[in-house]
Amino acid sequence: MSEVYADRRVRLRDRCAAAGSPAALVSRPANVRYLTGGSPAGAVLLLGPEEDVLLCPTVPGADPADGRVDELLRQLLLPAGGGDPAVAAVDFARKAGADALAVEEHHLTVARHRAMGSVAPRLRLADLSSAVEQLRIVKDEDEIACLRIAAEIADQALGELLESILVGRTERHLALELERRLVDHGADGPAFATSVATGPHSGRGGHKPTDRRVEEGDFLSVCLGANYRGYRCEIGRTFVIGTTPADWQIELYDLVFAAQRAGREALAPGAEYRDIDRAARQILAAAGHGDVSAPLTGHGVGLEIDEDPQLAPAAMGKLDACVPVTVEPGVHLPGRGGVRIDDTLVVRQEADGGPELLTITTKELLAL
Amino acid sequence: MSEVYADRRVRLRDRCAAAGSPAALVSRPANVRYLTGGSPAGAVLLLGPEEDVLLCPTVPGADPADGRVDELLRQLLLPAGGGDPAVAAVDFARKAGADALAVEEHHLTVARHRAMGSVAPRLRLADLSSAVEQLRIVKDEDEIACLRIAAEIADQALGELLESILVGRTERHLALELERRLVDHGADGPAFATSVATGPHSGRGGHKPTDRRVEEGDFLSVCLGANYRGYRCEIGRTFVIGTTPADWQIELYDLVFAAQRAGREALAPGAEYRDIDRAARQILAAAGHGDVSAPLTGHGVGLEIDEDPQLAPAAMGKLDACVPVTVEPGVHLPGRGGVRIDDTLVVRQEADGGPELLTITTKELLAL
Repeated sequence: MSEVYADRRVRLRDRCAAAGSPAALVSRPANVRYLTGGSPAGAVLLLGPEEDVLLCPTVPGADPADGRVDELLRQLLLPAGGGDPAVAAVDFARKAGADALAVEEHHLTVARHRAMGSVAPRLRLADLSSAVEQLRIVKDEDEIACLRIAAEIADQALGELLESILVGRTERHLALELERRLVDHGADGPAFATSVATGPHSGRGGHKPTDRRVEEGDFLSVCLGANYRGYRCEIGRTFVIGTTPADWQIELYDLVFAAQRAGREALAPGAEYRDIDRAARQILAAAGHGDVSAPLTGHGVGLEIDEDPQLAPAAMGKLDACVPVTVEPGVHLPGRGGVRIDDTLVVRQEADGGPELLTITTKELLAL
Repeated sequence: MSEVYADRRVRLRDRCAAAGSPAALVSRPANVRYLTGGSPAGAVLLLGPEEDVLLCPTVPGADPADGRVDELLRQLLLPAGGGDPAVAAVDFARKAGADALAVEEHHLTVARHRAMGSVAPRLRLADLSSAVEQLRIVKDEDEIACLRIAAEIADQALGELLESILVGRTERHLALELERRLVDHGADGPAFATSVATGPHSGRGGHKPTDRRVEEGDFLSVCLGANYRGYRCEIGRTFVIGTTPADWQIELYDLVFAAQRAGREALAPGAEYRDIDRAARQILAAAGHGDVSAPLTGHGVGLEIDEDPQLAPAAMGKLDACVPVTVEPGVHLPGRGGVRIDDTLVVRQEADGGPELLTITTKELLAL
């Protein structure tokens, strides 16, 4: 596996060299993990002019397992109280003869950047910008395999919940139970804070669970995901509680389902990000739900739950094969509730069978 | 309650004015919450030359309850896709006639700071530094009341766990169960990721729970805390599994207990931060555990679990009354395990009865 990380570092180094920086400093944890296989707390990766070094602070009680990184990489454990590893890295780069260092200006704070500048005034700090995030967009098959397992785990946890009694239980408890089930099935943890939304809360993306209890006649929207070896997926479903959904519920569900299907079907290598968004959005808008829908229809997933690309009206760019994204339109009617349907899929060539659906729980409207 | 937040803003404004800034922008979420009573996702607080404004981005699915802030405060909801509220705030300050704006350089990224600078080149961006964090150190009695409830909840969750069967269960499951119990007892959530460490893992601060199962003869260290209305406490205890602790376990436990008691007894208004640390640390060092102990003995708690002050060897400053801190020395022997004992206490005047212990679970060595 080590070659994978070394290859990624070579690609980044080539990009930096082309941009005029002989050295780069990666500080954003998910980026460090992508390039090293691990992310010991607070560690930063220096792609030096001659060699790569992972600088790790001594963290009390840190689990050595978290620090397990690519063994081809030199690791430097800084002494306890040794200050900011990013500052140490600047000094390291200077001594290695670098005259410029590209840093992640979208991650470093102003105060930290200033401390880095002051330790080596003649070293020019350039902007690495989101170079690593760009590399991360297209996944290799090992990464996709992790996402596939993460999705299986989320499907299992959700499936078990559906078999239990729901009426009378609070959003908070259902969310905790789902998170426990994710871990039972082998997740390292939830991919993000599990959302359970009942009745008037339903259909709201990112709803924070409350003490409201599930009632007969409610819509129930659930959004969860597993973190498996660092890779995070997302699934969202909406159910109806009771024997017979009301007409407005069926109508709204069918609408969101149609929008979500349109979004999924638009996924193809070469498709514009904003066209995926438009495919889903125009269906909601045609039914008069243009304003209440979310600012985006989906987003990339991977080592973070919300990665590039954004599938949004103003997003620029085109999908590639092997990019995993969510498609998650929803409608929320204030005071009444609503519907969200959310899948994680991998963009694939038509010849390879088209988009690969990772989250396979049924999208029929289930009355529970 | 609104007056509380308005008073805090007045105090901050006075501080800024004294430092030559007619306006300040607060972006760090816990600081926004401290000054407004709420922290809608992504919101920033502008203390303008004339009035205060909370600028909130439109966040899809955001729960209006999270945005419930001091009603004396003007709130401005930015349109969806309206960009960074911090950039909007700069424009706002400029139009209000400010020539300088103090910002939180320890929170803003370089990229964000640059975007803010470019929207109003003639507005000077100064550094607010940790002015709000400094205000937050001394708590009022309402804040302490929240911490007291948070501590009661953590005590209850821990007490229930001790009554259950532990042998054979994994660290991960015990941690999840503790978190569920915290919520059952009224916590908004865990104050931080619950740590459960068994056998060779025990005594390691911040240990991430694994699939290791509790065994007879193990030390079991648990560290948890509740978040109640935003306020976070911390409790850590170490137990022995089985009927009779081994001699080395009793000896190590007594040592850490003595160090923790010395730290607690040193808490008093006017005491130097580092003297609290030294009181605990010298007892461990005298027994030959100078190197393996943590870089700090305790820290402040409040809206964040790790606040100022740091009770550490190089910390500068003196305790005030009404400062809640943890005292949490520990020893971890690689391969064998160890002991951590962690309380949250409020510094009080001697005349008021001395330090107020919030986490009251027994610190006798229990054999479970």
